[in-house]
Amino acid sequence: MEIIVQKFGGSSLATVDKIKEVARQIKERWSEEVGIVVIVSAMGDTTDELLSLAHSVSDEPDPRELDMLLNTGEQVSIALLSMALQELGKEAVSFTGAQLNLTTTNSHQKARIIDIDTSRLHQELQRGNIPVVAGYQGVAENDEYTTLGRGGSDTSAVALAAKLEARCEIYTDVDGIYTCDPGILPRARKLDRISYEEMLEMASLGAEVIHPRAVELAQKYEVPLYVGRSCSGYQGTVINGGVDYLEASIVTGLAVSDEDIEITLRNVPGNSKTLAAVFSNLARAEINVDMISQLKDRQGRMHLSFTIAEGDLSQAKEIISQSRQQWDIEEWWYRQDVSKISVVGPGMRSQPGVAARVFALLAEKEIDILLVTTSEIKISWLVPAAQKEKAAALVGEDFGLVADQN
Amino acid sequence: MEIIVQKFGGSSLATVDKIKEVARQIKERWSEEVGIVVIVSAMGDTTDELLSLAHSVSDEPDPRELDMLLNTGEQVSIALLSMALQELGKEAVSFTGAQLNLTTTNSHQKARIIDIDTSRLHQELQRGNIPVVAGYQGVAENDEYTTLGRGGSDTSAVALAAKLEARCEIYTDVDGIYTCDPGILPRARKLDRISYEEMLEMASLGAEVIHPRAVELAQKYEVPLYVGRSCSGYQGTVINGGVDYLEASIVTGLAVSDEDIEITLRNVPGNSKTLAAVFSNLARAEINVDMISQLKDRQGRMHLSFTIAEGDLSQAKEIISQSRQQWDIEEWWYRQDVSKISVVGPGMRSQPGVAARVFALLAEKEIDILLVTTSEIKISWLVPAAQKEKAAALVGEDFGLVADQN
Repeated sequence: MEIIVQKFGGSSLATVDKIKEVARQIKERWSEEVGIVVIVSAMGDTTDELLSLAHSVSDEPDPRELDMLLNTGEQVSIALLSMALQELGKEAVSFTGAQLNLTTTNSHQKARIIDIDTSRLHQELQRGNIPVVAGYQGVAENDEYTTLGRGGSDTSAVALAAKLEARCEIYTDVDGIYTCDPGILPRARKLDRISYEEMLEMASLGAEVIHPRAVELAQKYEVPLYVGRSCSGYQGTVINGGVDYLEASIVTGLAVSDEDIEITLRNVPGNSKTLAAVFSNLARAEINVDMISQLKDRQGRMHLSFTIAEGDLSQAKEIISQSRQQWDIEEWWYRQDVSKISVVGPGMRSQPGVAARVFALLAEKEIDILLVTTSEIKISWLVPAAQKEKAAALVGEDFGLVADQN
Repeated sequence: MEIIVQKFGGSSLATVDKIKEVARQIKERWSEEVGIVVIVSAMGDTTDELLSLAHSVSDEPDPRELDMLLNTGEQVSIALLSMALQELGKEAVSFTGAQLNLTTTNSHQKARIIDIDTSRLHQELQRGNIPVVAGYQGVAENDEYTTLGRGGSDTSAVALAAKLEARCEIYTDVDGIYTCDPGILPRARKLDRISYEEMLEMASLGAEVIHPRAVELAQKYEVPLYVGRSCSGYQGTVINGGVDYLEASIVTGLAVSDEDIEITLRNVPGNSKTLAAVFSNLARAEINVDMISQLKDRQGRMHLSFTIAEGDLSQAKEIISQSRQQWDIEEWWYRQDVSKISVVGPGMRSQPGVAARVFALLAEKEIDILLVTTSEIKISWLVPAAQKEKAAALVGEDFGLVADQN
């Protein structure tokens, strides 16, 4: 019997009608030869509602009690979806993480999966039943309930698929993986396939269709992934090892993020001591520094720019202001109206001309390039936020990331 | 260390503010010498809301999945109340039924408690922590989640108190046990004490402050009970063995119920065969027959009256109509506008005059007595519904069940 793990996110289960629709989709897919294990998130905004309830009781709710509370969200979903499947004549049996002995580390709110006992699932599958499993949750030592943190339900689904040697289908409220956010590049093209590696670069850049943590796990255990809209056929994107697409196209996707701040320090002493002091002080405050660019002028003074995440700005401002004199920084400023545009593609490994091609494209249309970084399969440019759509359109057209015009 | 089990019902936990108030009450009561174990119901109308959600998915939700769903209600309460206690600086730790290994039979929706592992609770109490336990739920074989059915949370509380050799305080939205429903007898008096036995007679007659199942369990294990309003001091009613009140008063309370239907069969053949047929056919349909009264006339024909519960009326009508000819019943009717008034008191055992005294009282004021039944510590009269307040006032005054007039 082939086994498929199907995961449905909160938006696919937001109402009773949507739950019934999901049940119909599962029933249609099921057959004597294809066993289905379902993983669900909490309905709609339930998790956020529970969080705000907790925060109305306590300013800093205890992580253990928060897990106790949040666990109920998925438990409601598994019960209702099982009832909906039974209403359609399919035997369904719901399971919490604890009931499956889905063991995790003991770190509440950000537990990591240790193992899953699949014997009960195999038993139900043998009987032709559909197990419906609560995602995002597990159980640590002493029967303590835990949650897996961000991307938890996707991770539960992939982990279960890995243990069951199954393929994993993630159903969500988007059609699949696009070459670029259609909000930025309206003619962005949906990808039929993408490799784990590319997906990881895309996901960490803001294409939040599937959590990087789940993609990493899928890559590690070679679990074939599928991402698409629920109840709309199988028109989504397959994510797998992607060996055969290495040569296919140079650039697979274009990610645009608005969550960066550019910081510039002018006229810093040109010795590595000052730079080391700046970066180590930021690191001590757990501020991640990205896209570093430095330039030494004729007088031996250094000019330095780098980006940090938006959320770290106030802390970074404090650190730099306090140490400015000590570090002998003549002048400094930050800029918030910037966007990071990244092109991702495994073909870039063998095609070193991508960076030059993008530079030329952007220069020709007078788009300012503020900073650049490159990695093996990704090049990122920081541009003024006002120019991001224009930049995305230029790169998207040039690298064939848009759909054909009909 | 003395241990107290405190149970808070849904109305005491209906809002975040009420939960905080309950936390304050628990904290005040706690001391180094007095350990507290808290049992909670689901917040406000949560259980009803979850039930209606289930019924919007399925006409007949699977009992197992219903238990999976309903279990979440209490789980939300334990997490929030623990957070509220922590916010007040008290270490609280929540537990589901499954986590305490509160084992039950496997009958979903109406499971019965088998045992509770109190080792984890003792551990927490030793540390000075307050365990907060989900009522109404347990776990059967194979880690199946169950619920205890009606009166479940009260029953959880008493069972836990029995295992911990603790006293049990049930907090609800009424002040305690009254001699009579103040809606019927406005000057009804609150009782400081009542025996298990009397409470059981009162409870089954409609004084629904605490579920009879919990009182039975308390009686069996001699758990001292207290019933009162939450967050209002200790002004409620103590329920215990009551040995020393046997002589205290003849009548402790007066229960009035409107849930009975009087059925009369006229001119039935005066042999026991017909009566047996009538009652066994009703019994086969699980219709409970109460307050039977029969009279044989000079011609040897029988006239028979009895009461049944309102909910059983349509089925009873069908059974009697169908068999009327076969049973040779000349005439039959039913009457809905009737009320049952019951006086309860252990003193009645040694004071056989109570029935006569009530008959005289009611006759004097021209109140129709339709039917009468007596048990060891209870006498019930069926009267026209329109006369119930008048009857209650007469009996209440005469037996000293009302508060002194100021």
